[in-house]
Amino acid sequence: MMKTLTVTLEDRSYPIYIGSGLLSRTKLLAQHIQNKEVCIVTNTTVSPLYLKKLTASLADNFHCEVVVLPDGEQYKSLTELNQIFDQLLRSQFSRQVTLIALGGGVIGDMTGFAAACYQRGVPFIQIPTTLLSQVDSSVGGKTAVNHALGKNMIGAFYQPECVIADTNTLNTLDDRQLSSGLAEVIKYGLINDFIFFEWLEKNIEKLRSRDENLLAEAIERSCNNKAIIVAKDEREQGVRALLNLGHTFGHAIETGMGYGEVLHGEAIAIGMMMAVDLSLRLRWLSAPDAERIKQLFVAAGLPVEVPSEMSETDFMSLMAVDKKVQDGVIRLVLLKGIGQAVLSDDYGASLLSETLTHYTNHSK
Amino acid sequence: MMKTLTVTLEDRSYPIYIGSGLLSRTKLLAQHIQNKEVCIVTNTTVSPLYLKKLTASLADNFHCEVVVLPDGEQYKSLTELNQIFDQLLRSQFSRQVTLIALGGGVIGDMTGFAAACYQRGVPFIQIPTTLLSQVDSSVGGKTAVNHALGKNMIGAFYQPECVIADTNTLNTLDDRQLSSGLAEVIKYGLINDFIFFEWLEKNIEKLRSRDENLLAEAIERSCNNKAIIVAKDEREQGVRALLNLGHTFGHAIETGMGYGEVLHGEAIAIGMMMAVDLSLRLRWLSAPDAERIKQLFVAAGLPVEVPSEMSETDFMSLMAVDKKVQDGVIRLVLLKGIGQAVLSDDYGASLLSETLTHYTNHSK
Repeated sequence: MMKTLTVTLEDRSYPIYIGSGLLSRTKLLAQHIQNKEVCIVTNTTVSPLYLKKLTASLADNFHCEVVVLPDGEQYKSLTELNQIFDQLLRSQFSRQVTLIALGGGVIGDMTGFAAACYQRGVPFIQIPTTLLSQVDSSVGGKTAVNHALGKNMIGAFYQPECVIADTNTLNTLDDRQLSSGLAEVIKYGLINDFIFFEWLEKNIEKLRSRDENLLAEAIERSCNNKAIIVAKDEREQGVRALLNLGHTFGHAIETGMGYGEVLHGEAIAIGMMMAVDLSLRLRWLSAPDAERIKQLFVAAGLPVEVPSEMSETDFMSLMAVDKKVQDGVIRLVLLKGIGQAVLSDDYGASLLSETLTHYTNHSK
Repeated sequence: MMKTLTVTLEDRSYPIYIGSGLLSRTKLLAQHIQNKEVCIVTNTTVSPLYLKKLTASLADNFHCEVVVLPDGEQYKSLTELNQIFDQLLRSQFSRQVTLIALGGGVIGDMTGFAAACYQRGVPFIQIPTTLLSQVDSSVGGKTAVNHALGKNMIGAFYQPECVIADTNTLNTLDDRQLSSGLAEVIKYGLINDFIFFEWLEKNIEKLRSRDENLLAEAIERSCNNKAIIVAKDEREQGVRALLNLGHTFGHAIETGMGYGEVLHGEAIAIGMMMAVDLSLRLRWLSAPDAERIKQLFVAAGLPVEVPSEMSETDFMSLMAVDKKVQDGVIRLVLLKGIGQAVLSDDYGASLLSETLTHYTNHSK
């Protein structure tokens, strides 16, 4: 069974295919490749699992090369990006080459950015193999690499030809990675889908035990939520910023702890709890709702406390380079209820400071 | 006196200002800066000459930081690009920062690409200080860095807010750099402006002796030629490829000799002569016209012979990664007359080989 969603962006519109066993469906993939030249980018963890399946389906009809990068957020840098360019140029691949990202969010972000830059832009396809990348990073055209001083600071808005989410790939994901993906799934409920939030409360145990149908439904509902927002605001001039719920705090944790120490979903789960805490202090959110959100994160196997290494000062300096800073003020995504996220800069510095103090007072 | 041209590209349209003393006209520049944050990117050659003038005009109203890069095509790489990101992040500059490129084509290309990538895109302004960048690279939104295996292979189409060409800056240009710029000027005559070609034949001596009015006119006519072509075809799907006359051969020379050994204008002058030679062998161009073109390059102080280090094999392998390669065939810009450039892949491999043999037979 396969479900198809569409991200509607004028001449950059594209389909998201969701289903089990899609990796072997050659025609599905091949119809989105414009030319003979294909370069698959993957990592050392994913390649033993799925690379053969993919190359087998392509080998007969395409000149197919592969780049295998090391696995982990710490390798999402300009240095590793250059390895993709090395391979493309060694293969003398032209402006007609199609890049295929086979892996999680790091591979998707890097491959997309490489595609945006190679010869000033070539087509690419997303084949996300983690829950996190299937529900979030593979959809919407945000591509980037990290810089030592800030996450995703170097990148481009660049849309793929299609996204192919094969739910079978989730079977090889470890539990920690699965929970990390669930953080982004829960995020959609918190932002603007209370009904989905309640559905997640009800089904969180079955999702963690990898019920195939429920996972497919969670992916579809997440992608659908994201596709609607991206279609309204491709370049994050407005409503798209809501998708960053928990990310300003979360990116500070990822950068501050060193890339790869804390998984992205874990960092933004903590970040969402910090946004919840600030929303509570603002009396925008009720205490029972805040507790309800915390319980769902805990049930999803996610952390809800800031790592003890992080201080309030760390947060302030790392958050100052967030992409949502405008005129020197950090704009934050906060909650006026479950399913009601708002972008705000009128939270008051003192309440933000209280939240940071509370979360970094590790002796509490 | 100031002339203003417009590059017409819907919501990405922008003005080109040409005139003497524009660097000191604060308001001209300031009206194109959207926010308080400004980062000037320049190099070690240009900064002692013009940086103070520029910062003096900005210091009162903006938070202005500076990145000074080493001078030369060999530094147009991802490594040096990262120095710009380092400075932007150290300064905690937001998505509202405006980057200003103060320098020649290398600085313009790198600053533009940095602007395209920083936080997925921030505004930038071109202040070209060489003839070559004033007539070519600052206009049209092609940005890039080089890769060891190919020139301008990593980049983006990204338009500036405006281009400010202060003709006074040409006074500090050495003769070799001035001639290099004239190569791109002559190119416009060859592509589609026979009247301009004749004007150049008549005025080449005075241009080399830096007659201010004639240089301003040459810049205006060149930019006007380019603006018309870019407006028709921003992303080089068609007619814009004609602007690459001499560039497929020229890039091979630049990459093969090592970046910085041969100036860009010198390399493409040789490249244009190779295109002329192939056009002659195809009987598309007459021998007197070919000779006339050669004489203009010589009069402009430009080389017309391939460096003795380059072999036919070098050309073939380096040209194979050219951005105009399609379905394995190198498309070349050739001449059907002075002022009549065409993009062609039906020149025949054997005639191309004859041209390469002729130009790389260094004992001839």
